[in-house]
Amino acid sequence: MARIVMKFGGTSVADLDRIRNVADKVAAEVAAGNEVAVVVSAMAGVTNQLVGYAGQAARLYDLREYDAVVSSGENVTAGLLSIVLQDRGVQARSWQGWQIPILTDGAHGSARIEKIEVEDLLRRMAAGEVAVVAGFQGFEPVRRRITTLGRGGSDTSAVALAAALKADRCDIYTDVDGVYTCDPRIVQRARKIDRITYEEMLEMASQGAKVLQTRSVEMAMKHRVPVRVLSSFQEGTGTLVVDEEEIVEQAVVSGVTYSRDEAKITLRNVTDRPGVAAAIFGPLAEASVNVDMIVQNISADQQTTDMTFTVTRADLERAVEVIEANRDKFDFKAMSIDKNVVKVSVIGVGMRSHAGVAQMMFSALAEKGINIQVITTSEIKVSVLIAEEYTELALRSLHSAYGLDAA
Amino acid sequence: MARIVMKFGGTSVADLDRIRNVADKVAAEVAAGNEVAVVVSAMAGVTNQLVGYAGQAARLYDLREYDAVVSSGENVTAGLLSIVLQDRGVQARSWQGWQIPILTDGAHGSARIEKIEVEDLLRRMAAGEVAVVAGFQGFEPVRRRITTLGRGGSDTSAVALAAALKADRCDIYTDVDGVYTCDPRIVQRARKIDRITYEEMLEMASQGAKVLQTRSVEMAMKHRVPVRVLSSFQEGTGTLVVDEEEIVEQAVVSGVTYSRDEAKITLRNVTDRPGVAAAIFGPLAEASVNVDMIVQNISADQQTTDMTFTVTRADLERAVEVIEANRDKFDFKAMSIDKNVVKVSVIGVGMRSHAGVAQMMFSALAEKGINIQVITTSEIKVSVLIAEEYTELALRSLHSAYGLDAA
Repeated sequence: MARIVMKFGGTSVADLDRIRNVADKVAAEVAAGNEVAVVVSAMAGVTNQLVGYAGQAARLYDLREYDAVVSSGENVTAGLLSIVLQDRGVQARSWQGWQIPILTDGAHGSARIEKIEVEDLLRRMAAGEVAVVAGFQGFEPVRRRITTLGRGGSDTSAVALAAALKADRCDIYTDVDGVYTCDPRIVQRARKIDRITYEEMLEMASQGAKVLQTRSVEMAMKHRVPVRVLSSFQEGTGTLVVDEEEIVEQAVVSGVTYSRDEAKITLRNVTDRPGVAAAIFGPLAEASVNVDMIVQNISADQQTTDMTFTVTRADLERAVEVIEANRDKFDFKAMSIDKNVVKVSVIGVGMRSHAGVAQMMFSALAEKGINIQVITTSEIKVSVLIAEEYTELALRSLHSAYGLDAA
Repeated sequence: MARIVMKFGGTSVADLDRIRNVADKVAAEVAAGNEVAVVVSAMAGVTNQLVGYAGQAARLYDLREYDAVVSSGENVTAGLLSIVLQDRGVQARSWQGWQIPILTDGAHGSARIEKIEVEDLLRRMAAGEVAVVAGFQGFEPVRRRITTLGRGGSDTSAVALAAALKADRCDIYTDVDGVYTCDPRIVQRARKIDRITYEEMLEMASQGAKVLQTRSVEMAMKHRVPVRVLSSFQEGTGTLVVDEEEIVEQAVVSGVTYSRDEAKITLRNVTDRPGVAAAIFGPLAEASVNVDMIVQNISADQQTTDMTFTVTRADLERAVEVIEANRDKFDFKAMSIDKNVVKVSVIGVGMRSHAGVAQMMFSALAEKGINIQVITTSEIKVSVLIAEEYTELALRSLHSAYGLDAA
């Protein structure tokens, strides 16, 4: 007997037939003698529709009201799944965030879970009742308002609930059958990964792999929740996200990811003086523009410096505005922007003990005539910025170079 | 300065443009210096969709889960209206049933409001904040579950809130501009009624006029809440529902209504003995079949009796099953059913002091050759059951006979 949390995303609960399919999976776990909590997203498309309504209502809106609106889709799914489960003789009840409660801070729109009071749930789960929990939402106890956890927040709901329940496992059911060495739509020889470390999964999620929300992986890592990613629609063991010690044979590189969500800004001939970087990036940070990769070169004239950095495409316009508005604080000759870039990353905890991983990346790309614009590295990751038109070629070349291709 | 409750139904909040129109009306009341609470329904069609989902999920469902599902539409509207109001500089916040809370009993699907804790609302309304309240829903405090008040329940939410807030007025905005002497789609010469008594409005609502939920009128009458029915889409003073004393010139008959929601059951040659009526209607009541009109005649053979009564069409099948199942408790020769009937009622508090009102009805119908099948009367109402094909003819004839036609 185990205590498990199962999470189903929007495509897995898109209509009543799919909700019945979910109920099959839940009923099977109950029949196997497990204590089960289920976390559900809104039916596919519902949250987007509600977000759209909020945008139509006002250009700038009160995030407390936005949360009250967009959280409603999950309540519907939780109630419907409970009805379907009861209909096949499985005891179940739905729980909204405020009913448990799932306590969060007051950062509406992207709130952080602070505590989940699970006593009631544990008692009822032990008595054989499935807890069907509305994902994505929480409750801010001071003003007694509903909060939401940000897009993809149901993953975080599930992992946080698993941590609070001290669950043996958190199964994330989605529309793919696991985490892959690379996007299989681009690299046909990509392989499903059986086991991956928290650290790698975190880098994969933050470097463009869309299978899990980054914050949910952070939380799983912090609380050592064993997470499994698997498909709602086909049988399989999926991918297990676990501690490094639990992986016997560790590949040097576990996966190759990409993100098209980048835009490059270059400031030419910035007058070089101490504090110029702070002068540039301070105002951007204040305007909540996230700067990712940064590179600073000496200019041809040796007196000034060229500064290149990347922001998300959504932030590009705002970033340019902020820079223009602060031109009195730092001098530069010209600003150029480039949206036709992609960030490609290779990720693997094996890098820590293997030299030459970055070198292999540079060689593989050079061999195909792909110019590297910016490089950043971390302990278990190397990322490069290249022209977007080379995306597919770069991914396939790197996937082969690191020996990841399926036989 | 007054304290008012404004209620907007589903067609009044069907999309963002209409929600903006609602915000105009609310903003105008705030600008006039009033303290305002607004009760909103779900966007038109949403509740039907959610009810449909519940029906698809299971044939018989847990009403607690049904309530969790179908209550969500109102939360969306309340949030969106708050955003739109804030966008035009009007302070506003949304309130879900559990947040206020609106305390109800545990009769899920058709719960009764027991108490509304309005201290917080009153304080904020006095500070100029509009309270935007999700209609149709409440909170059952023992199990901490969401309840709903039954279809059309937002009217009841509004009146109950007006009573709890000791509001000066409860304005029910709908898609018609008031209460009419008869359905204007059938009787072209129907007139809008300027003032109507609670008692008449209650009979109108329960005898088929769909403009207000019956229970909301009962509650308005009990707490003496002045209710006004008016249009969201055109200017006008609407219809005021008030105490009898506030109406100076009272017509004998105020309105003519009809209900197609009737079905007639006749049991022939029932063995007549004391207690036979109880034997028939007891089991029906136990099966929650509401019996409306009843008439009992001596049969041709003088030894037995014929029993005719009406139930709603939705209950007909169940009523027939119950009667067949209890045939051992009372004997009869034959049962016949008739769905092609309509109940036509004339309503007016003036009847109390005027004789001959019923007689005028019988004459007017006889003159057109319309046969009356069943008659029931109350202090301020006469209802007859006739063949459905005569509906329009009967309504127009009665409307003219009682002098209600517009000039």
